[in-house]
Amino acid sequence: MDEEKFQSIHYCHDSGCLTIIDQRKLPLQLVTVELHELDQIWQAIKTLQIRGAPAIGIAAAWGIAMHLRQSPGDAEALKIALNHAGGYLATARPTAVNLFWAIERMKKRFSALCEQGSAPSQIIAGMLAEAQAIQSEDELMCAAISEHALELLSPDMRILTHCNAGALATARYGTALGPIYLGQSKGYNFSVFVDETRPLLQGARLTAWELLQAGVTTTLICDNMAARVLSKLGIGAVLVGADRVAVNGDTANKIGTQGLAVLASYYKVPFYVLCPSSTIDSRLLSGESIEIEEREASEVTSLAGVSIAPCDVAVYNPAFDVTPGYLITAIITEKGVFKPPFNFA
Amino acid sequence: MDEEKFQSIHYCHDSGCLTIIDQRKLPLQLVTVELHELDQIWQAIKTLQIRGAPAIGIAAAWGIAMHLRQSPGDAEALKIALNHAGGYLATARPTAVNLFWAIERMKKRFSALCEQGSAPSQIIAGMLAEAQAIQSEDELMCAAISEHALELLSPDMRILTHCNAGALATARYGTALGPIYLGQSKGYNFSVFVDETRPLLQGARLTAWELLQAGVTTTLICDNMAARVLSKLGIGAVLVGADRVAVNGDTANKIGTQGLAVLASYYKVPFYVLCPSSTIDSRLLSGESIEIEEREASEVTSLAGVSIAPCDVAVYNPAFDVTPGYLITAIITEKGVFKPPFNFA
Repeated sequence: MDEEKFQSIHYCHDSGCLTIIDQRKLPLQLVTVELHELDQIWQAIKTLQIRGAPAIGIAAAWGIAMHLRQSPGDAEALKIALNHAGGYLATARPTAVNLFWAIERMKKRFSALCEQGSAPSQIIAGMLAEAQAIQSEDELMCAAISEHALELLSPDMRILTHCNAGALATARYGTALGPIYLGQSKGYNFSVFVDETRPLLQGARLTAWELLQAGVTTTLICDNMAARVLSKLGIGAVLVGADRVAVNGDTANKIGTQGLAVLASYYKVPFYVLCPSSTIDSRLLSGESIEIEEREASEVTSLAGVSIAPCDVAVYNPAFDVTPGYLITAIITEKGVFKPPFNFA
Repeated sequence: MDEEKFQSIHYCHDSGCLTIIDQRKLPLQLVTVELHELDQIWQAIKTLQIRGAPAIGIAAAWGIAMHLRQSPGDAEALKIALNHAGGYLATARPTAVNLFWAIERMKKRFSALCEQGSAPSQIIAGMLAEAQAIQSEDELMCAAISEHALELLSPDMRILTHCNAGALATARYGTALGPIYLGQSKGYNFSVFVDETRPLLQGARLTAWELLQAGVTTTLICDNMAARVLSKLGIGAVLVGADRVAVNGDTANKIGTQGLAVLASYYKVPFYVLCPSSTIDSRLLSGESIEIEEREASEVTSLAGVSIAPCDVAVYNPAFDVTPGYLITAIITEKGVFKPPFNFA
């Protein structure tokens, strides 16, 4: 399938530069940004120029490899650069387990290269290859997730999705949107309802844009319309991504997912979480202890520079919530379809 | 209590002009608008300069009385003017039963005045007095609703509300916000969480503004954060208004109310609907047949002139939803506290 007609992340070996789509500018402008240095990548992750758990992991891997490429010296100097880059990038977003996973994987690869007695130039080449592998594997994982998930869906189905777990959030295809693209390429004729996903409107800005690019029948709604849509419009499935999944299936994802899962359960609509298995945190027994990032009040009180609330009002702005595993019909990874009770130990 | 420091609707007998707060301009500007003619009142209702079911009814009553005052002729000519004004105003908002209720009440008063053999000037004076009575009774009803509802609440309680059922939406005090103002005047120290209420942000713009004016501890959230707030922050009650209530308690209210009721039920938080008894439509056995107004796509796809979604995306924008009566813990009117199973026949 080649329904999505853009690439979210691209590393150029000649220029040593990472090119990303500035997701804050969509859907009004399709702007690409060239990132040359570690700090630019940290900023891009922090400020949501690039977002989506898998895409963040890929960008961090490239960030580490690029930083090593720019760091002169022997293996010891490279190790110092590695630890600096890894520690720094880990501070950009506290909830996305893929970020830590990618950093850890890059560190393990570095250790292996050192143990093999590789020269500094070989270490750098090996680290660039590892970042490329993480990106390529994500593309393959998304394709596999799409194949598994499509078996749960039927032609002409109406689907509801939240936030953006699409091609922009991954190397390609996406997780929650992957089976929609795959279905589109097979003539499934899905009709997709998209939660706008306040406060940052990833649904309105990114998911609606992606789906329209691919020619999918798309209807935008406000988040608070989901109950009416689920109860009245014959929705066959809710598809969402995940930022972190615990052993018992508890799932941290974009704020609003928890409420959507309660509504889907109430209205007896299957609720599916789609994510690469790297999103599952086997050290986390339940979702209770997941740290939830709280973001700035201004994300809620103003929009595109326009104030939409009294300037002195207090705001509660959690970026994520935790959906209990028992509200999830199935979790779909590249390894297959998992149903409750979940046990990812 | 005099916690709210503004008046949503004021008719000046000397100038014959209705002054309202332009609710579209809040919270950035407190602008009042003078309405001199029937068409201006229709426009003000249609474009949401004035909104809230009780306030719409009051404005419509004044609109009819003002139109008669401006219509020369005998009782027969006044009757033609009355029917024109009533029919025209009824088209401004299809869901608000208070609008039709107020128009009907004004027609009945007209018939009574005619039957008494009143002169045209007496009819006009009587109709102006009837509009004033509707407004004054609404203020008294809101005060009575507040008294009844406060008995269901405890000091230091955390409360969640949706949309704006406050002083701006009524003659004074409000319905859902009435007990909060009453509690504030009695030192109850409530802490109120306010859904921003997309797409038109009545919560962020109006409710947060009203509550801050009255010194109430107020926290703004996006609609999709309600599940997390209900599950984690110890909310003691959800208070909402109503646009139309059926005999079985099914309640049409601002879009998002239905989902909030499902969430409140799931998280075992009492869910209260507060409204004057005129909101109950005794001809309506259930909510199934309530016509739900669908509004323009641009309300969702742009904000303050800024586009926030692809311009070619389809939008589903119902202004209301219907909460089943069995999800409502109690309906509170000026007549008291009603619990399910409801039977308002």
